[in-house]
Amino acid sequence: MISTEEKEIFAERLFSGNLYKLKQLASEISAEELAEYINGYKEIDFKKIFQVLDPEKAIKTFENLDFEIQMALLRSFSVEQLSSTLNQISPDDRTALFEQLPQETLQRYLSLLTDAERKTANQLLQYPEDSIGRLMTTDFISVRPDWTVQQTLDFIRTYGKYSETMNFIYVTDEQGFLLDDIKLNQLLLVPLDSKISDLMEEHYVSLQAKDDQETAIDAFKQYNREALPVTDFNGLLLGIITIDDIVDVIEEEDTEDIQKFGGTEALEDQYLKVSVREMINKRAVWLVILFVGETLTASAMGFFKTELDKAVILALFVPLIISSGGNSGSQAATLIIRAMALGEVTLENWWQVTKREFASGLALGTFLGILGFLKVLIWTIFSDVYGEHWLLVGLTVGITLIGVVMFGTLSGSLFPLLLKRLGKDPAVSSAPFIATLVDVTGIVLYFTLAYFILKGTLL
Amino acid sequence: MISTEEKEIFAERLFSGNLYKLKQLASEISAEELAEYINGYKEIDFKKIFQVLDPEKAIKTFENLDFEIQMALLRSFSVEQLSSTLNQISPDDRTALFEQLPQETLQRYLSLLTDAERKTANQLLQYPEDSIGRLMTTDFISVRPDWTVQQTLDFIRTYGKYSETMNFIYVTDEQGFLLDDIKLNQLLLVPLDSKISDLMEEHYVSLQAKDDQETAIDAFKQYNREALPVTDFNGLLLGIITIDDIVDVIEEEDTEDIQKFGGTEALEDQYLKVSVREMINKRAVWLVILFVGETLTASAMGFFKTELDKAVILALFVPLIISSGGNSGSQAATLIIRAMALGEVTLENWWQVTKREFASGLALGTFLGILGFLKVLIWTIFSDVYGEHWLLVGLTVGITLIGVVMFGTLSGSLFPLLLKRLGKDPAVSSAPFIATLVDVTGIVLYFTLAYFILKGTLL
Repeated sequence: MISTEEKEIFAERLFSGNLYKLKQLASEISAEELAEYINGYKEIDFKKIFQVLDPEKAIKTFENLDFEIQMALLRSFSVEQLSSTLNQISPDDRTALFEQLPQETLQRYLSLLTDAERKTANQLLQYPEDSIGRLMTTDFISVRPDWTVQQTLDFIRTYGKYSETMNFIYVTDEQGFLLDDIKLNQLLLVPLDSKISDLMEEHYVSLQAKDDQETAIDAFKQYNREALPVTDFNGLLLGIITIDDIVDVIEEEDTEDIQKFGGTEALEDQYLKVSVREMINKRAVWLVILFVGETLTASAMGFFKTELDKAVILALFVPLIISSGGNSGSQAATLIIRAMALGEVTLENWWQVTKREFASGLALGTFLGILGFLKVLIWTIFSDVYGEHWLLVGLTVGITLIGVVMFGTLSGSLFPLLLKRLGKDPAVSSAPFIATLVDVTGIVLYFTLAYFILKGTLL
Repeated sequence: MISTEEKEIFAERLFSGNLYKLKQLASEISAEELAEYINGYKEIDFKKIFQVLDPEKAIKTFENLDFEIQMALLRSFSVEQLSSTLNQISPDDRTALFEQLPQETLQRYLSLLTDAERKTANQLLQYPEDSIGRLMTTDFISVRPDWTVQQTLDFIRTYGKYSETMNFIYVTDEQGFLLDDIKLNQLLLVPLDSKISDLMEEHYVSLQAKDDQETAIDAFKQYNREALPVTDFNGLLLGIITIDDIVDVIEEEDTEDIQKFGGTEALEDQYLKVSVREMINKRAVWLVILFVGETLTASAMGFFKTELDKAVILALFVPLIISSGGNSGSQAATLIIRAMALGEVTLENWWQVTKREFASGLALGTFLGILGFLKVLIWTIFSDVYGEHWLLVGLTVGITLIGVVMFGTLSGSLFPLLLKRLGKDPAVSSAPFIATLVDVTGIVLYFTLAYFILKGTLL
């Protein structure tokens, strides 16, 4: 990776304005490193760097830049430069750029493409957001079954450098329907006059362009391939997806899940890049929903105000009880939501989950119940804050904890499954959401138990 | 992917015991698909499938099986079969298998390897857990700078099929120190008598075997490569890592972060595979720590018992107040922890984060404060549950909410940064942890404010 020292030399040469030395330095590091440097130091004059790069490296560097810098560069380009850049960047990187443009700019940029490139760009943009089609590149090597290995290698020598991957070549019929994929190393291991058809095994894994990107993640994890072909529903080869693009999608999907689980709408961009206003909006939605849900706790406690008036001591344990329920629910929900996201748990496993969580909830609840009872017992030895009926108070707290933890555990684990069953996103049952659900129930359970246990003594 | 229909045919042929037809079917689907089928249907007689597979496919299938099935198979093998399998599977998959074995079995298996393979296996096992070395494979193509392209292609024709990737070949000197990596397609695009040194650019990205796997994730994301070379700290080429293994690591790391964030220790295995006992242990640790922390809420409320006795009405709002603080803290913590995991936020950004979260906390707090006040106001119109001093009660609740939400937001966002500064894992500041922290503070703030606002009226 680019070292701090190299970065300093770079900055110095940029500053000194010695373009020749800058050019020399730029030729010594890779396009990806150059892009990393520019993405990290936005205050530098990156336009100057682009003046000295050779055209091929400039395109490769451009593809790896952040969106804002890409836009700043494009705006600074002449129409010729703009058109040449837009025509040369690879179709998948271009789709990623284009899908963030305002409609007007998009139309202008599309008009600068050659007919062939514009057709490709329009096609890729037609696939739904988050579909496999949006990740696809049309730069791949496709060959016919009756070609010889020699013919194929000649073809690769001519067109290979435009392909996103060299690990696989794709065999299609005359109409372009996918017949097979072949590992490139197989070509290098057989005589040059062998036919492609001799190498074909006629079983391959392919993705469909309209499917969700999550399908692609699963397939890449399953098959350990570096690239997979994408077809339409008839089997016509449309493009390929390479695994480096999938890595970005995995991180994005996990980020979305994590943010939802923390009780906020998923952010559109990086934390520091999203405007404060947008961030507040994303957070306010759930905070208000949860607040309104949580006002039910005040109502529930209001309902038991007669009991509270008689035994204020009961109020002291309310936060302890509801938070224990919330915490155990949060644990269960995380485990299940993540297991569902990874495909380890499906709806069919609901009974297994119920059994496991019932056992866990009972064990953990009993444990916390005993701890709760001990707390009352021990404090009673040192003070008289819990009064003469401390034993009954301790029992109420202990038994409530068992119930609340069990309820928290079961609802935390089963609610995500229920949401899935209803066709909703399980990640909506966030930690705060489960906590709110359990809070209200916990209070009702606590005071109801107190009513029966303490009737005639405290109440 | 393997279709339901194919699965049924498979099951049928397995059941009918027609080995010839089974063999035919098995030859038509890929090793990865076969492994997927076996992993999904553990009750089938997978040993029978292995009897009919050709040796190469059997190895490839074996590499993709779950650990338990790999063990079941190995235990059923004769010593010859066992030894041949262990010697043939690729070094990185073997490390993944070996690191899960009990010491005794590991020693026995190591003794079945050839000297060369045992040396490799022992070397790979010496790297620390979660280090890059554990993911490495030693099957790569390495060439000298003075070779011609023709020599290189001949070399690949002989040894290429053992390599994990064909996209890159690695240039080393006589001693094995890494000089460069070259894309295979460059070889196919130049005359056969060109020298490897003509193709070298002498800048490359490499990983160090002892570094943490997270470094590898960052590098793969940054450079969009399908494989990266791994060296020791002197630059000696030790092996390569391919991106398909990185995909699995990303998912594991994200799962760990998510589970920690939900307030449980990370599970060692899939949710349904971990024993209920182990799961309870993993959850009990944090549940008890949080419970003990949360007993401070009872103490805090006990401290204000005089005030509570006089104004029981105050108790009704405790859950609403503390949960609002917890929810806003949970939101802030998730956003920051994830942003840190992705490298979007570092310690250097602490002041930026503080400013953003101060603004968010103030806005969200004010919003919830107004809602809280309105709740008291509206209920007062319909009932007299809040008494004659409802206005002051409403003000107390509203102002407390502003403070609690701000405190929750700031501590949720800054605590992960503090943990990082202290060299701890930021993910420890889980949603439940932040909630507990905010609960105690929230109660103290609430009753202190109540004391000043309600003195002389309710108190």
